[in-house]
Amino acid sequence: MSKFWSPLVNDLVPYVPGEQPKMANLVKLNTNENPFGPSPRVIEAIRAEVNDGLRLYPDPEGESLRQTIAAYHKVKPEQVFLGNGSDEVLAHIFFGLFQHGEPILFPDITYSFYPVYCGLYNIESKTVPLTESFEINPDDFKQPNGGVIFPNPNAPTGRYLGLQHVEDILVANPDRVVVVDEAYVDFGGESAITLVDKYPNLLVCQTLSKARSLAGLRVGFAVGHPDLIEALNRVKNSFNSYPLDRLALAGAKAAYEDEAWFRKCCDGVISERERVTAALEDLGFEVLPSKANFVFARHKEQSGEVLARGLREQGIIVRRFNKPRISEFLRITIGTVEQNDALIGGLRSL
Amino acid sequence: MSKFWSPLVNDLVPYVPGEQPKMANLVKLNTNENPFGPSPRVIEAIRAEVNDGLRLYPDPEGESLRQTIAAYHKVKPEQVFLGNGSDEVLAHIFFGLFQHGEPILFPDITYSFYPVYCGLYNIESKTVPLTESFEINPDDFKQPNGGVIFPNPNAPTGRYLGLQHVEDILVANPDRVVVVDEAYVDFGGESAITLVDKYPNLLVCQTLSKARSLAGLRVGFAVGHPDLIEALNRVKNSFNSYPLDRLALAGAKAAYEDEAWFRKCCDGVISERERVTAALEDLGFEVLPSKANFVFARHKEQSGEVLARGLREQGIIVRRFNKPRISEFLRITIGTVEQNDALIGGLRSL
Repeated sequence: MSKFWSPLVNDLVPYVPGEQPKMANLVKLNTNENPFGPSPRVIEAIRAEVNDGLRLYPDPEGESLRQTIAAYHKVKPEQVFLGNGSDEVLAHIFFGLFQHGEPILFPDITYSFYPVYCGLYNIESKTVPLTESFEINPDDFKQPNGGVIFPNPNAPTGRYLGLQHVEDILVANPDRVVVVDEAYVDFGGESAITLVDKYPNLLVCQTLSKARSLAGLRVGFAVGHPDLIEALNRVKNSFNSYPLDRLALAGAKAAYEDEAWFRKCCDGVISERERVTAALEDLGFEVLPSKANFVFARHKEQSGEVLARGLREQGIIVRRFNKPRISEFLRITIGTVEQNDALIGGLRSL
Repeated sequence: MSKFWSPLVNDLVPYVPGEQPKMANLVKLNTNENPFGPSPRVIEAIRAEVNDGLRLYPDPEGESLRQTIAAYHKVKPEQVFLGNGSDEVLAHIFFGLFQHGEPILFPDITYSFYPVYCGLYNIESKTVPLTESFEINPDDFKQPNGGVIFPNPNAPTGRYLGLQHVEDILVANPDRVVVVDEAYVDFGGESAITLVDKYPNLLVCQTLSKARSLAGLRVGFAVGHPDLIEALNRVKNSFNSYPLDRLALAGAKAAYEDEAWFRKCCDGVISERERVTAALEDLGFEVLPSKANFVFARHKEQSGEVLARGLREQGIIVRRFNKPRISEFLRITIGTVEQNDALIGGLRSL
């Protein structure tokens, strides 16, 4: 603590992202990156923008990218809000839509950035326990709140909640914003974006970091009623007018113009996920049913900590959360066939 | 206003950036972009990163870039904080260092984002009038406050405050952070970064958008005592772990590795600034002495509004602020020789 700090800085508990080790030759299955690179059209579109034009500011509204995303998802451009990764989008959501003096609701096991945003903006929260099988029960979100947020599929469980149940939560909270954080939806789930015109209280958040293979480019977005988007624009334009650079705008746009590549990558991840799941079950793991690009699994006999350490000694990095209910689980990103083989071989040897 | 908004969103008055018109063939002298493109080494360094590696997250700490900037400015990497443009850096500064329950101080004529940040974080402010000749008087900053911030050179006046006067302000405020916002310092000023080891209350903010010709890439940074940097890191890591993408990190680093290019561009802007100043004076303008890549000028007889409109009709865009004391001034970015000739010719014809 320093006398120069705003006093609240002392109480902040920052988010800790998954490790980005700088060693080569690691089997890096800890931050849910896509094993496939971005589309060649993305590479080409970015290269075309690497020129003298970088001396000029980007379009602060990202109009062209918003048009592309809107057309792709069959909504209007004014229903799309862009951010520097979905983490920035989420931060603006917490600031602009969740400060109502009542606790917001999220699952007890979920994306660990949510409580961090609450700390940043002094928002109270109440966690809603997942069921014993680590599922969201929509009935549990029928209680007074200042807003609701959950990932779908949930992280780090990978479990998906069907859209009819998402609708149950929306119907139960007509006066509060319900945010569905769909970072992983493209790996087998169905997006709630199809519901935004039906529910003015629905905001759907997505990222290009996972299914679009662009974690290195930092682009995320939210889709919802124009009133919700306006709140986010007011916050964004009071914070940073130009959060997306010229290269990110160009690359993100191109990512939506190569559907075949996108499908191929998602299908590749999904089929490997099923193979890894079966192999882990063979090895004595309980694997939660996943619709994400990772699996969440615990061994019936061996400790998660010991397994994670044993893998690390072999140069294989997975993520473990030392938290109640899930400390025995490993969260394992689905990698390439070779990486997944290394993982399975590595676990077999332990 | 919507029932879904956090109530404070209704009161936000967002920043309005200079227009980014989408028409071609404009003489665009309204947002202080550099007329020269970035160094060829920047282009090359970015191109080398446009590959499959984009599927991976960037280094959340930007370690390599921080090392480069630290070495360039002869400080330690832990004295450098990176952000998505200096606007994001400033936002985190206001949040992390300016919330002390006392009004912060900034000049009455200054960067118009400062009051916006105050609105966002509910920070009181008190404006300190510039002198009649639009200079900062250090004595005016000797009063109780929650922090001090001013650009040097100031914007939109372009006037520079010598470092001995900056030190007066630092000495007068030992218990508060004094932020020197040096977006334009490379066009003839001297950076206060040389003073950070002497004053633990000094934080210097810079951007790569102006002198480094990278407005399109969104990179800014702050330099100060590690305690101040730690506050900013806590805020940043509670907001967005990865604000700089892989391409911005690579391009920004390369920008510091081509000193000759940087000097050539700055010298080019400076010599054109002197030429434009003389030409404007010939045309009957009062031009404030500028150490920035723009001039701030008012005609002795003609109205600023009429002149700005007349230029626009000729496809020449400058910026005018319809605010007390400065509504007759035009802020004119220094462009290429051809653009500056167009400006001078355009004004002559009015």
